[in-house]
Amino acid sequence: MTTIEGSKLVRSQGVTAPLGFRAAGIAAGIKKSGKPDLALVFSEGPEYAAAGVFTSNKVKAAPVRWSQQVLKTGRLRAVILNSGGANACTGPLGFQDTHRTAEELAKALSNWGTDTGAGEIAVCSTGLIGDRLPMDKVIPAVTEIVHEMAGGICGGSDAAHAIMTTDTVPKQAAYHHRDKWNVGGMAKGAGMMAPSLATMLVVLTTDAVVGAEQLDAALRKATGKTFDRLDVDGSCSTNDTVLLLANGASAVTPSQEELDAAVLAVCDDLAAQLMADAEGVTKRVRVTVAGALTEDEAVAAARCVARDSLVKTALFGSDPNWGRVLAAVGMAPVTLDPDRISVSFNGNPVCVDSVGAPGAREVDLSGADIDVLIDLNVGAASAMIRTTDLSHGYVEENSAYSS
Amino acid sequence: MTTIEGSKLVRSQGVTAPLGFRAAGIAAGIKKSGKPDLALVFSEGPEYAAAGVFTSNKVKAAPVRWSQQVLKTGRLRAVILNSGGANACTGPLGFQDTHRTAEELAKALSNWGTDTGAGEIAVCSTGLIGDRLPMDKVIPAVTEIVHEMAGGICGGSDAAHAIMTTDTVPKQAAYHHRDKWNVGGMAKGAGMMAPSLATMLVVLTTDAVVGAEQLDAALRKATGKTFDRLDVDGSCSTNDTVLLLANGASAVTPSQEELDAAVLAVCDDLAAQLMADAEGVTKRVRVTVAGALTEDEAVAAARCVARDSLVKTALFGSDPNWGRVLAAVGMAPVTLDPDRISVSFNGNPVCVDSVGAPGAREVDLSGADIDVLIDLNVGAASAMIRTTDLSHGYVEENSAYSS
Repeated sequence: MTTIEGSKLVRSQGVTAPLGFRAAGIAAGIKKSGKPDLALVFSEGPEYAAAGVFTSNKVKAAPVRWSQQVLKTGRLRAVILNSGGANACTGPLGFQDTHRTAEELAKALSNWGTDTGAGEIAVCSTGLIGDRLPMDKVIPAVTEIVHEMAGGICGGSDAAHAIMTTDTVPKQAAYHHRDKWNVGGMAKGAGMMAPSLATMLVVLTTDAVVGAEQLDAALRKATGKTFDRLDVDGSCSTNDTVLLLANGASAVTPSQEELDAAVLAVCDDLAAQLMADAEGVTKRVRVTVAGALTEDEAVAAARCVARDSLVKTALFGSDPNWGRVLAAVGMAPVTLDPDRISVSFNGNPVCVDSVGAPGAREVDLSGADIDVLIDLNVGAASAMIRTTDLSHGYVEENSAYSS
Repeated sequence: MTTIEGSKLVRSQGVTAPLGFRAAGIAAGIKKSGKPDLALVFSEGPEYAAAGVFTSNKVKAAPVRWSQQVLKTGRLRAVILNSGGANACTGPLGFQDTHRTAEELAKALSNWGTDTGAGEIAVCSTGLIGDRLPMDKVIPAVTEIVHEMAGGICGGSDAAHAIMTTDTVPKQAAYHHRDKWNVGGMAKGAGMMAPSLATMLVVLTTDAVVGAEQLDAALRKATGKTFDRLDVDGSCSTNDTVLLLANGASAVTPSQEELDAAVLAVCDDLAAQLMADAEGVTKRVRVTVAGALTEDEAVAAARCVARDSLVKTALFGSDPNWGRVLAAVGMAPVTLDPDRISVSFNGNPVCVDSVGAPGAREVDLSGADIDVLIDLNVGAASAMIRTTDLSHGYVEENSAYSS
């Protein structure tokens, strides 16, 4: 949809947009609903460089611990993902389940004709915390899914569907570089916005010729500016995982800058899709803090406002209650002058130098998109955090019984 | 209601329970509803020692700036409080309004026969941020309220009513020490739980003979363990104020320990009343973290859980979703072993060593009181934070238009 210097970003394709990647999504029976719940992304090579970014939560699910360990080699051939269960807080037995899933998949892939080890397979899970996975259903499905793999549009789309929990639409994006190499990606969730059916999972692929270190650098830069700046409710899942696999199938070697830009473009678009589909969302909100001393302080201040329940409920009510924005930013651990803060909603000044502007209470916020701009007037740095409103829908979806 | 070594805590009286204090509450016309909106607490002496604790928000309302300045003398004769408007983010003109209110009250009190200066008067405001107060209504009312002052039950109760915003009941407590001295108090709100009608205001009085330093020490210790550990939505108002006045009218000089205990008892009871009347509350929740390395870490961990929207919505739904508690505590900036955390709800173990306990999903949380106990198993320190659930009522009350 967006054109950058002859390159193109589209949402019709995802992880199988780059050459040499196959994917699949099937119903393994993990979800009681019978909906698709198992996805596979497979790299045909010739290279298998990989990088990953994981939840900062100290309580990490078994698949996160497994994948972090596996990724120390900077190498991945496949990613197996399940919805319908987080496999978090399941103890040593839960970790054994993850390990066994990787072993069974390695066996199935090897039988299918590739020489794959369990140590080349990342595992991702999403769903209720605290329950073991139904391994009697997972194990046969892991063999079955290998035979369902497909390249092109179908495979990636099926995989994007199978990782959905309370997501209402699958999320995919692909960046086609004019020099004939590609980055694709799929995503589900948004932080821990969903009920117990939580977690953000993202798999990115590229057919560029790039090493693990180059991938790692591009991924950290991109997630730092996109997924890390998406904050639905301030909660952080035990399972959050973002993976990036490169197979060199295009035979094109981009510069670090080109790779950074392509990965950032895909991550940014997926983050926007995650925000738009957040649980109970009725408003898509972008909180920008400008005039901060440093970018870190801009992020911290914007996050304080984006997480504030009183700001979020006001936006749900289309209420231009700028006083809550000032109260929220006043609690941020950043340098500010309490008498020099200015705020605008959708471009309309509502507060200038910490005093209400004429007409501030009449600003129309009835639309679905709200831009909140806060100028601290103490420096030149700025940053934007994406968030949503706090609605009845959010409370409703998150107060349902886990059982 | 509670008896401590022959001393007694009651809720039938508040700021006028100690000897030599008068109070009043009237309708000045600041609130459009015509309900009481102006309160006065007056100390007859013979001493006028005072201490105060104020919001930690960098954005402070005009009355907070005024009262902080006045309290540098460690001396107060009176406190004038209004609901119906926060007088925050109102610029230099808003500060002039506060100053003028104190000046007019000093004049009225002096005309009435006491030699009072504006510098002996604290001012507190609560209501919508960003609007000027209707001074044409405030000024005549400040003179009128002086003539309404009364001691005993009536005066204190009228004042407690007049500071209410979205509070549904007035909050008062009084501690009668067996050695014939007293501490009384009134409170409104709870953090910034209320809509734009925010703020926690507390005025405490005692007839003990104590100096400003002794008062300050007792007040800081008590607020640190009570109001600072009440967290409805993590938001912090621009106007929060807790004041403690001592007039020595009992002629009794308690020890620091006795004073500390009495002030703590009144603050603790008022904090419990604030929690019980929080906006949209359907559950009164106490989150206790035990087994922490230090008390500060216990507070930080309990606060993380008490502020988590996913935990709070689950509790609204009476859902024993302990996985969210683990996910929330896993983000706390404290020392913990992710494999050694145990959780119980109302005394029922739901998670032992970070793995679900048998029957955890069947624990009944349908009652109005929920105790969440989290044992980190890394130390011996503990702390409790009071909070509430996140309900439809909270969203409803906070999404209404400020206009």
